[in-house]
Amino acid sequence: MPNELKGHAVIGQSGGPTAVINQSLVGVVEEARRHGCIDGIYGALHGVRGLLDDRLIDLRAESAATLERVAATPASALGSVRKKPTREECERIASNLRERGVRYVFYIGGNDSAETAHLLSELGRGTGHELRVFHVPKTIDNDLLVTDHCPGFGSAARFVAAATMGDNLDNRSLPGVKINVVMGRHAGFLTAATALARIEPDDGPHLVYLPETAFDVGRFLDDVSRVVAKWKRCVVAVSEGIHDASGRLIVEGREKDSHGNVQLSGSGALGDLLADHVKRHLGEGARVRADTFGYLQRSFPGFASEVDASEARRVGIDAVKAAVSGQHDSGSIALRRTSNSPYTVETFVTPLASVAKNTKSFPAEWIVPAGNDVTTGWLDYVRPLVGSLPDVAQLARVPVPPRS
Amino acid sequence: MPNELKGHAVIGQSGGPTAVINQSLVGVVEEARRHGCIDGIYGALHGVRGLLDDRLIDLRAESAATLERVAATPASALGSVRKKPTREECERIASNLRERGVRYVFYIGGNDSAETAHLLSELGRGTGHELRVFHVPKTIDNDLLVTDHCPGFGSAARFVAAATMGDNLDNRSLPGVKINVVMGRHAGFLTAATALARIEPDDGPHLVYLPETAFDVGRFLDDVSRVVAKWKRCVVAVSEGIHDASGRLIVEGREKDSHGNVQLSGSGALGDLLADHVKRHLGEGARVRADTFGYLQRSFPGFASEVDASEARRVGIDAVKAAVSGQHDSGSIALRRTSNSPYTVETFVTPLASVAKNTKSFPAEWIVPAGNDVTTGWLDYVRPLVGSLPDVAQLARVPVPPRS
Repeated sequence: MPNELKGHAVIGQSGGPTAVINQSLVGVVEEARRHGCIDGIYGALHGVRGLLDDRLIDLRAESAATLERVAATPASALGSVRKKPTREECERIASNLRERGVRYVFYIGGNDSAETAHLLSELGRGTGHELRVFHVPKTIDNDLLVTDHCPGFGSAARFVAAATMGDNLDNRSLPGVKINVVMGRHAGFLTAATALARIEPDDGPHLVYLPETAFDVGRFLDDVSRVVAKWKRCVVAVSEGIHDASGRLIVEGREKDSHGNVQLSGSGALGDLLADHVKRHLGEGARVRADTFGYLQRSFPGFASEVDASEARRVGIDAVKAAVSGQHDSGSIALRRTSNSPYTVETFVTPLASVAKNTKSFPAEWIVPAGNDVTTGWLDYVRPLVGSLPDVAQLARVPVPPRS
Repeated sequence: MPNELKGHAVIGQSGGPTAVINQSLVGVVEEARRHGCIDGIYGALHGVRGLLDDRLIDLRAESAATLERVAATPASALGSVRKKPTREECERIASNLRERGVRYVFYIGGNDSAETAHLLSELGRGTGHELRVFHVPKTIDNDLLVTDHCPGFGSAARFVAAATMGDNLDNRSLPGVKINVVMGRHAGFLTAATALARIEPDDGPHLVYLPETAFDVGRFLDDVSRVVAKWKRCVVAVSEGIHDASGRLIVEGREKDSHGNVQLSGSGALGDLLADHVKRHLGEGARVRADTFGYLQRSFPGFASEVDASEARRVGIDAVKAAVSGQHDSGSIALRRTSNSPYTVETFVTPLASVAKNTKSFPAEWIVPAGNDVTTGWLDYVRPLVGSLPDVAQLARVPVPPRS
């Protein structure tokens, strides 16, 4: 085999965890074990942190039974990291990999991880130590370029859709205005997935606001009033990243990470702020509540989308196949939807540079002109990724005739 | 049959919904249909509100298939209400029931609902229109007197235990301090159930604070520092109702309902307040996040405890059996745990007055002396109510030896 490259493989996980990120990890391990050219299969603890500090674990030592259980376990089993390494750090990593005899790198993460993988791949080229570097996509934000959608998104979407179904039922029981804040700093895909909760014509979410549209508090309050006038209640889904026309966040965060991102999750500030606006607007006696779905969206166990779990496994497997084949010395595994009904996908390799740095926004054609809801085109796109939702039903409610 | 009482039955639901409150509703309907002495089976829309306004639906018109689907649907299918009727309103209700020919009242709710049922029963006695009034227990707070535990609690406990499992895994991946605020104004049962999330010795929640113990911010910060020193991370479960030694709530709510209760749920204020304390205490660079689990705890679909669902159905069925038998003209259905291993329960009728007004606190003997955790005795009590939790697993993490 002319392109056969012998050596060890190392796998890392980066960024916010998902419910199925370990499916990808186990996909890589499972496929790597099938190839004689791969000797050691190492896991880097906490992504680039472990690569920098040479903190590696032996993934060949894990039993098949443990690996299967880990695959179904949310959150990064190797530990994750938010760190974006500098060029100097990447050089140290490349040097560590050379000294270790590592020839295959699989990095599971979002676009920042693809950028790190790209830098490592470029550095490897310069040294004469051939390195094959593959990015395995994951993100609940669904904002990677090129791919049809991102592993991890379907499960988070299933969680927020079910949470909104339940919350809509709760709001039917005890009517009022309920605001639910959903993850998604720049991309509204996850917030938009709450629209899957609708079954009956009067089901919430009645209003959906994404960060792709400028948010105007006055228009929002008018929207709420209109829905309350019609249905006597209102369920709102709003992205944590909503901002005004000038791009200023509606809630100003208090903290930034090393990527320069403002902290939005892990705080109830935006929900409380919007609830206060609505209370003042509707006046005394209005029942207004806000929930921030929080980290449960990405880490709730036992509730993954089956399609998402299987695709997350598959991108891990296919990353190893691509690396071993030698057809590409680097790349990111992407998904192409070949049919929507029945739903089918295939994978392909896209250059790391095509996925790194930039991200995708929620398409404008799936947002209604008023900027407060999503279209059925979006629902057709997202439904197969989420799979079945819990079955819920309403009573027929046949009135007993009034007393004569 | 000497005690046979012929007439219509009416069912209402009250207070905060649960994931299984409709199991009780369907249990009542299903059993009522078996008894010839019960003619019309009515549902009152929004509890006492519907009884006051004579807004009734015909539950005999519902198909068995719809009823089964509704049983598995969270939140009150008849609509709920937070209203505690005055004596005058109860008199109007009693008069409505008399005019309607209603002889059986089943009211599904917490202790406030038992109090309403008690008042209705007393008023019925005075009029000569024989009325049998039964309270069917539900509350995620698990704070009703007499009964071993409350239908609705097991499912909420299952949700918060699973949420904490996932959150603990998330926190393992990206270490920091994570504070989770759990429902429970006066009773810590639900917050205490997060302790079921622990599998490994270093699993969170590492600290658990209930409203039954005075909360001291200084001691809390010391506790967090100690856990962070030991495990490099810390997951905290805290009840929304925590208060200082003088009884003052740690977070001051902004709104009261007609029972005089301060609004605690539907706001992220407490979590954000505690997170700010921890950030100031641990200093620059500490990763501190807070989530408030919110209404998902009581309304998330497709995740009920099987034991809880079956017991919620059973108390509905047994309320009708008790009412029809005529052995009691009123009462609340309570559960008695006859064995913990294997877990078995039986139901019995307790007087309405024994359940109305007062509530139960989390027993002091299940709180550790330091006031920051629960005991294994509690876990033995709660585990059968929650049933199976999602299976999650850790890698063995065999280190790759350092480079020579």
